[in-house]
Amino acid sequence: RCAACRHLRRRCPSDCIFAPYFPANNPRRFSYVHRIYGASNVAKILQDLPENVRGEAADSLHYEAYCRIKDPVYGIVGMITVLHQQICAAQRHLARVHAEI
Amino acid sequence: RCAACRHLRRRCPSDCIFAPYFPANNPRRFSYVHRIYGASNVAKILQDLPENVRGEAADSLHYEAYCRIKDPVYGIVGMITVLHQQICAAQRHLARVHAEI
Repeated sequence: RCAACRHLRRRCPSDCIFAPYFPANNPRRFSYVHRIYGASNVAKILQDLPENVRGEAADSLHYEAYCRIKDPVYGIVGMITVLHQQICAAQRHLARVHAEI
Repeated sequence: RCAACRHLRRRCPSDCIFAPYFPANNPRRFSYVHRIYGASNVAKILQDLPENVRGEAADSLHYEAYCRIKDPVYGIVGMITVLHQQICAAQRHLARVHAEI
């Protein structure tokens, strides 16, 4: 059984939507997305996508869920704020160097 | 009734967890988070937070849901990739300018 079907205590069907992206050896990966989105919302998002991009979608959902659990107020948006600040700092630095030249 | 209770076709209780963050005049805001997280998961995330940060949590959830609807494969993680690339480009630019000096 894949990690999702184990978590949901059900039989893992041969065409399980979760199995390719939530392997049994990483139960935490599914528990994160389950806690934040719920199994049916994750299944719906994956099912609506072509198969060749479902792996990347599962990865990004997992990363967002992980960030939301670590930072329940800002989630991954907190990281975007930090990156924006880094860009602003780099631009200021660049402007200063240009001014010195 | 707040946007959430309208969407869920229910009476809006006086202590509604959604009402302060999902006003009736912005139905789309709730429809986004409902579609991606589901009402009960949003309620759970808000309820577990102190009241003074629930507004910011609702904003970040809304933003993440919006990005996931616009880009179902990468969601907001796609934006982080773009920001990382911008930082790398700025750093390369800075290194070039330093080398020129």
